[in-house]
Amino acid sequence: MIEPQLPSKLLEQAVNEMSKLPGVGRKTALRLILHLLREKKPEAAKLGESLTTLVNDIQYCSVCNNITENEVCDICADQSRDHSTICVVEDIRDLLAIENTQQYRGIYHVLGGIISPIDGVGPGDLTINLLKERVANDDVQEIIFALPTTMEGDTTNYYLHKQIAGQVERITTLARGLAFGDELQYADEVTLGRSLLERIDYKGN
Amino acid sequence: MIEPQLPSKLLEQAVNEMSKLPGVGRKTALRLILHLLREKKPEAAKLGESLTTLVNDIQYCSVCNNITENEVCDICADQSRDHSTICVVEDIRDLLAIENTQQYRGIYHVLGGIISPIDGVGPGDLTINLLKERVANDDVQEIIFALPTTMEGDTTNYYLHKQIAGQVERITTLARGLAFGDELQYADEVTLGRSLLERIDYKGN
Repeated sequence: MIEPQLPSKLLEQAVNEMSKLPGVGRKTALRLILHLLREKKPEAAKLGESLTTLVNDIQYCSVCNNITENEVCDICADQSRDHSTICVVEDIRDLLAIENTQQYRGIYHVLGGIISPIDGVGPGDLTINLLKERVANDDVQEIIFALPTTMEGDTTNYYLHKQIAGQVERITTLARGLAFGDELQYADEVTLGRSLLERIDYKGN
Repeated sequence: MIEPQLPSKLLEQAVNEMSKLPGVGRKTALRLILHLLREKKPEAAKLGESLTTLVNDIQYCSVCNNITENEVCDICADQSRDHSTICVVEDIRDLLAIENTQQYRGIYHVLGGIISPIDGVGPGDLTINLLKERVANDDVQEIIFALPTTMEGDTTNYYLHKQIAGQVERITTLARGLAFGDELQYADEVTLGRSLLERIDYKGN
């Protein structure tokens, strides 16, 4: 079906931008935007403004790359946590999922993605150098790989292991209580908490 | 599952606003926003800006309530169209769907919703007064009700009919019956019964 032209360039532009979101096609984008327009104007403007503000003012923790309001995120700033254990995650949704298990008292490292040649994501796009600096300079006893149990996750584990092997006492990965292909954020707390407690030594081969 | 607090108020705010969209929960909102943040900043800011611009600068056609860039929309401004026939639709998506058939050369009236007490939408929230003015002041021969074939659509048809009956020559509604490609055995009783009652003369060509 050929879509007829939208009656306004402003609308066209908003639909174009909205439909760049993952899983949002042009029809859905139009539905969402018409919903916004039906709301009272000040109400609807809030989303636009909050996105603009977010994008302009967002900060990343200088230690672990978590999203934060300050120079260092609350987790890294918390001295009651175990700073010798670093849990490496893909993005903050996975960090939130692990925090939610209440099984982990160490700190994190947010990679900002995983190595995925098919999506054009290489090691240089991730915060791997920052992690290597932390391993080199801080008193790190253990690195926990908590990446997705997918091909890309495994590739990233392997690459990270090559980079830091021998520099930390222990490199572990989450116990594979999870099925192959599972994503952390959708796992239930019990499974995820258990796989964290029963983490095993990572063998880089 | 209790969601842990997000690590930034800006992020929290954007997720709150995004999750007000229909069909978007907090998890989806967070996924969409993290996707935006992963993009390059100027790219990601565009959505926020285009939404803000849209909401501030959007205009509605003073004749038919269609979204437009001008005082009067392109359809109402098109003198080659039949201005004596008005097709009443719920919102501009329905207008676009009808335009897409290329079967209609009249003009429109966009109600901006349908009467739905359960959603708190009453006649006063729609552009019914504007429609009544058009019927009273313009040379309108026919009003076509092209509202959804739901309880709310029927209610709105009934209400509109009460308001304008006797003031236009003809009030029609879209034919209801079997869709193209439907098989009788899978059609619901209401549709099938109605298409039987409202059967039309067969033109054998």
